[in-house]
Amino acid sequence: MTGLDALLADVGRAFPALRLLTDPTDREGYRHDETAYMEAGLPGAVALPGSTEEVSTLLRLASTHRVAVVPRGAGTGLSGGAAGIEGALTIVLTRMNRILEIDPDNLCVVTQPGVINAELKDAVARHGLFYPPDPASYESCSIGGNLGTNAGGLCCVKYGQTRDWVLGLEVVLADGTVIRTGGRTVKDTAGYSLTHLFVGSQGTLGVITEATLRLRPLPGPRATMLAFFGSLAAAGHAVAALTRAGLVPVTLELLDHETILAVDDAHQLGLDRAAAAMLLVESDAPGTAAAAELDAAEAAILAAGGTSIVRAQDAQEADWLRQARRLALRALERQGTVRMEDVGVPRARVPDLLAAIERIAAAHGVRCATFGHAGDGNLHPNLVFDRDDPDAARLTHVVRDEIFRAALDLGGTVTAEHGIGAARREWLPIQKGEGAVAAMRAIKGALDPLGILNPGRVL
Amino acid sequence: MTGLDALLADVGRAFPALRLLTDPTDREGYRHDETAYMEAGLPGAVALPGSTEEVSTLLRLASTHRVAVVPRGAGTGLSGGAAGIEGALTIVLTRMNRILEIDPDNLCVVTQPGVINAELKDAVARHGLFYPPDPASYESCSIGGNLGTNAGGLCCVKYGQTRDWVLGLEVVLADGTVIRTGGRTVKDTAGYSLTHLFVGSQGTLGVITEATLRLRPLPGPRATMLAFFGSLAAAGHAVAALTRAGLVPVTLELLDHETILAVDDAHQLGLDRAAAAMLLVESDAPGTAAAAELDAAEAAILAAGGTSIVRAQDAQEADWLRQARRLALRALERQGTVRMEDVGVPRARVPDLLAAIERIAAAHGVRCATFGHAGDGNLHPNLVFDRDDPDAARLTHVVRDEIFRAALDLGGTVTAEHGIGAARREWLPIQKGEGAVAAMRAIKGALDPLGILNPGRVL
Repeated sequence: MTGLDALLADVGRAFPALRLLTDPTDREGYRHDETAYMEAGLPGAVALPGSTEEVSTLLRLASTHRVAVVPRGAGTGLSGGAAGIEGALTIVLTRMNRILEIDPDNLCVVTQPGVINAELKDAVARHGLFYPPDPASYESCSIGGNLGTNAGGLCCVKYGQTRDWVLGLEVVLADGTVIRTGGRTVKDTAGYSLTHLFVGSQGTLGVITEATLRLRPLPGPRATMLAFFGSLAAAGHAVAALTRAGLVPVTLELLDHETILAVDDAHQLGLDRAAAAMLLVESDAPGTAAAAELDAAEAAILAAGGTSIVRAQDAQEADWLRQARRLALRALERQGTVRMEDVGVPRARVPDLLAAIERIAAAHGVRCATFGHAGDGNLHPNLVFDRDDPDAARLTHVVRDEIFRAALDLGGTVTAEHGIGAARREWLPIQKGEGAVAAMRAIKGALDPLGILNPGRVL
Repeated sequence: MTGLDALLADVGRAFPALRLLTDPTDREGYRHDETAYMEAGLPGAVALPGSTEEVSTLLRLASTHRVAVVPRGAGTGLSGGAAGIEGALTIVLTRMNRILEIDPDNLCVVTQPGVINAELKDAVARHGLFYPPDPASYESCSIGGNLGTNAGGLCCVKYGQTRDWVLGLEVVLADGTVIRTGGRTVKDTAGYSLTHLFVGSQGTLGVITEATLRLRPLPGPRATMLAFFGSLAAAGHAVAALTRAGLVPVTLELLDHETILAVDDAHQLGLDRAAAAMLLVESDAPGTAAAAELDAAEAAILAAGGTSIVRAQDAQEADWLRQARRLALRALERQGTVRMEDVGVPRARVPDLLAAIERIAAAHGVRCATFGHAGDGNLHPNLVFDRDDPDAARLTHVVRDEIFRAALDLGGTVTAEHGIGAARREWLPIQKGEGAVAAMRAIKGALDPLGILNPGRVL
């Protein structure tokens, strides 16, 4: 009997009603996350627990039987962090999908990890409250996955990443111990911040079974604007000019020429197809300050070489302009296989990063469409290949490595919001240095001495 | 030869010019932080390094010779975290006091730890930039100490604590290894967030020798208002009403009756001496939004039972109103020995915490003046004793324990911004739970296996 068989037998005795998938066809659905082009293992079994107690028992038994565990949310990750490990136990948190309490007086929400980001946003909005983090997949990704990867999104430029919105967690440790790292008190400096450590650790240090998230008052409707540019450099300079003008828009997104064409081909939005780049700029400042912020942005953009500006006159038009960015990835996916990367640099280095990406893609004859969160220095270069291109994997590897090197040379990161996962492991010591990674390994060893939690991910 | 003697001999050979204090009179100045009423040890030696290299060598040799090390900034801490340990080496970072670079394009500043908070604020303000964290001691505390304790201050209610403003650190680990945890890229999810872990760890995991801090565009002048109340409960309800109204003032401070009297006695500010409580409310919203925010706050306050309102007509008057809060501690210290605590609760529980503090102090016949950051649930109850009260220490202990228990029963913390340090260690497992503290101990053991870094603090 393998360790997994023994674990399953013990689990069956402890929780006969626990949802367990053992059929290979069922398990196959948990092999990949959204990086289907990466190799991944077939889980030996998939558990869908309904309670912290069940998660705790699963981890305790996994420790007893030395079985590797992959914690997983909605499976929308882009780093292979929740992909299967051959023969391991995948623990899927999607059934723990209740919002436990919305607390307007304390500006927070207590939630289980399986709740979908958009559902949480909608639920708190009904109380006049706002949960900012908005990954592009917000309609399908889960809060647990957001916590695991420290997910970002479009409004990070103003509101930061997932980690910035977490007050406290309930976490099941590798041996099954359940701890709480914080609660509804926003200001707390007692002991080490385990909350911040677990967020972004991609299930390698524990399994998050509950979270208390900060909220803000819901801002008013956004003022929305598109700006077009004759060169990528001009768009990059406009981003820098907005920063220098002291503006903090809630959205500051860039689309390059390839992306503009793909979106316009797919959806006929009437974009300026001749433009080399486009910026989506939004303000959620209160009252008349929103229009004033866009006025200031418009002036800075035109001074930086913007060629034309489109401003939404109402909410419907704003939605329409916003679509150009929201539909970008799907539009590219219509045209072939897309390998999306996630580099970040200090925001003033965006023009340099854009130039480097263009240069690298051209040197290898690879089509690359870049869009992303220019306002915080985070760009997504998307390598687009014909579906049957036999050279795609090799070229991806070569181009990706050069783009990573370029981002690091600019003082940046190989992953701004998707996570190291399985996809970028070899780059962690190159970016952070051996000493910092040794410290991370020491922490991993301290909290997961048997190494059962998502082995081979992050570190 | 003791371990310390051997260390000093080795250090003298490696860095003959390193500033070392060995004379007992000189060392005496490093026995206490601002908790002079607590027992503390006399450092065996005090080193004032001038470079990361010197810090690294000091820690490497401290590891070799098994000498305990106390990292220390400006010594303004309120938890005994930087107080001396008998015979240990205190490493004082005040000589590493250069701002290395202000980077307006990337909205960040790179600084050494010995820079004073107010100097950093002033330096970046000259570039139109804003570093928000503002502990009450901002004119004398150092950035390194702020990082060690995750210091708070008055504007946390809007801008968060020190940890929220740190992009990256250079840290010297216990064995002398120098690591960097991040840089100028604001969005980075590569690996575990060591940055967030080291901030608030009070020198028990490493010594911070450089920090890259986030900045914001400098807001315009603040609109400032005082509101007076006939009862503490009414002031508490007003705080809750502001939250429910969706307001996020930059300052939302409370002073109780005892504090109002002490400030007015000392400085004749013309405050309402009959008032049971006072709120200081400020807005730094852009343009006319600041006055609009105070209008909304005034309406909410009057509806909640506010008895009178004073609004500043200009910057000078605003400074004058603000003084009431800034001078509170010193005014109380004129009247006796003050033991300041630092509890926090979920913000809606502020009225309950105020009531509990009043009840506990009255039950023990102890004079207590409470002020603090009501907007984020952080209150400072100050026990005021006659300077020669022989029973002060015992009463402090009893009253403090009851206040801590009350805060925890309300879902709060025994320290919102001062730190566990040496003063509150026994309360950490009570607040966080044994499992969470065991996880912290495991991390401590992983990063400081010999236990030389600030032993007996935090954990």
